Amino acid sequence: MTVEPFGHPIRVRYAECDPQGAVFNSHYLAYFDIAMTELWRAAFGGYGVMMGRGIDLVVAEAQLRFRASARFDDELTLEVSVTRMGSTAITTDHRIRRGNELLVEGTLRHVVVMLETLAKTPIPDWIREGLAPWTLVQEAEQPA
Amino acid sequence: MTVEPFGHPIRVRYAECDPQGAVFNSHYLAYFDIAMTELWRAAFGGYGVMMGRGIDLVVAEAQLRFRASARFDDELTLEVSVTRMGSTAITTDHRIRRGNELLVEGTLRHVVVMLETLAKTPIPDWIREGLAPWTLVQEAEQPA
Amino acid sequence: MTVEPFGHPIRVRYAECDPQGAVFNSHYLAYFDIAMTELWRAAFGGYGVMMGRGIDLVVAEAQLRFRASARFDDELTLEVSVTRMGSTAITTDHRIRRGNELLVEGTLRHVVVMLETLAKTPIPDWIREGLAPWTLVQEAEQPA
Amino acid sequence: MTVEPFGHPIRVRYAECDPQGAVFNSHYLAYFDIAMTELWRAAFGGYGVMMGRGIDLVVAEAQLRFRASARFDDELTLEVSVTRMGSTAITTDHRIRRGNELLVEGTLRHVVVMLETLAKTPIPDWIREGLAPWTLVQEAEQPA
Repeated sequence: MTVEPFGHPIRVRYAECDPQGAVFNSHYLAYFDIAMTELWRAAFGGYGVMMGRGIDLVVAEAQLRFRASARFDDELTLEVSVTRMGSTAITTDHRIRRGNELLVEGTLRHVVVMLETLAKTPIPDWIREGLAPWTLVQEAEQPA
Repeated sequence: MTVEPFGHPIRVRYAECDPQGAVFNSHYLAYFDIAMTELWRAAFGGYGVMMGRGIDLVVAEAQLRFRASARFDDELTLEVSVTRMGSTAITTDHRIRRGNELLVEGTLRHVVVMLETLAKTPIPDWIREGLAPWTLVQEAEQPA
Repeated sequence: MTVEPFGHPIRVRYAECDPQGAVFNSHYLAYFDIAMTELWRAAFGGYGVMMGRGIDLVVAEAQLRFRASARFDDELTLEVSVTRMGSTAITTDHRIRRGNELLVEGTLRHVVVMLETLAKTPIPDWIREGLAPWTLVQEAEQPA
Repeated sequence: MTVEPFGHPIRVRYAECDPQGAVFNSHYLAYFDIAMTELWRAAFGGYGVMMGRGIDLVVAEAQLRFRASARFDDELTLEVSVTRMGSTAITTDHRIRRGNELLVEGTLRHVVVMLETLAKTPIPDWIREGLAPWTLVQEAEQPA
């Protein structure tokens, strides 16, 4: 089974490009975060809605593979899908494209936490349901 | 009367440089903030001490004049002095040098606020006294 | 005489916000640069077109006045107009709004240079003409 | 066999911290780059020396594992060692510590390229020899 990834367009800013003329590597990780923000908006109204319900996210792991460089003023598409939804962790798969060309791909793993304490908490149903259209594997059962 | 400015060394990071090979302009404004942080540390132990006493700063105005470019791996000196200490506002003068060469100069005006409410508050004496060694003009009297 | 400013929408990114929950001040200067990039696109096809004709820009001065804070996920409008077009320098006026609320206003002065040498050069006619719809004061005559 | 990692101290800047009060995740990747720059300086005089000899680096892969948050004004140590030196690729292992506490660990893989063409090129001996004190595994033989 496959799902269509969520997509969001951005344009590369001059300030993000380095003396090689390409986007500096750490900005791609910031681009992944933008994709998450926009996926959250599509799924259940946005980060603000999530935080208003007392929930926040912290990032636990990131992987990036750099295939080709984005350059100033390029129009990119940030793609993201949820590849695994555990009991408290959400794994997302990211691809950054310029047209059909794949520039960067990677993975993030976030942990769902209480906004106030930053303690781990089970993923609420409204997050699971909201993200379902872009989720590849929904775990059948969750730890009690 | 003159005072010696406070000085703090930094080295230009690759990620701060743009396709022209020079530090992108907005980073100089971030450099001014680093100079403030280090001046605060020298004056009374740092931002953390200030915030621990319920006080914070918000920036109200900034001016920058760009004379020459800093480049990757350059060693710079961030200079700052307090040019005016009002009742609630602190004006600082900034210079960024590479050796004797002046690259950027500018001014910031910050307003002292309550940490919780962000409402303006009179500058506490321990801030005035701590900054005195780097202050050019201390207002003789303050509005009631 | 007045002209309508050029406008471009952006959304505040989480990575641009600081522990006060507001956009860190230096990012507003980077926002001004985005407004320039988009104005250039509207005027004559973009920075790439300009650089392809051997012309580049360097920033000489910046002024910012901070009135209110932009926050994560805010939708902002970046407004820019050309307030003065000299022989080699372009002055732009910037306003950052959230709806009708003015958050930040400021001014940039750029100098037009040869891409290869970074030496000052007279502003080409195609830049003057392209920017005309957003230019408040076009100098009647230019130094020989 | 083990080697002592190369270490470099930095202090967290306010502009690098997000509304959670912690360093935003993408900045840790930029911190890894600072560690590389300083290791290069210790090994053979710096990036400038390398580029002056017609060699540059491009990043191919990055992995990060986030264990705890760095906060504003924290003093961190950036640790790096070379875990694998192939024919054209250099793998480095990174750890970011606050005192004895491990905050972030990760891996970068860079490819050595010709500065002008960005084409892959065998790692020069002066890079291998310069990095030897911090290199865990030096490949015994290299492709002809």
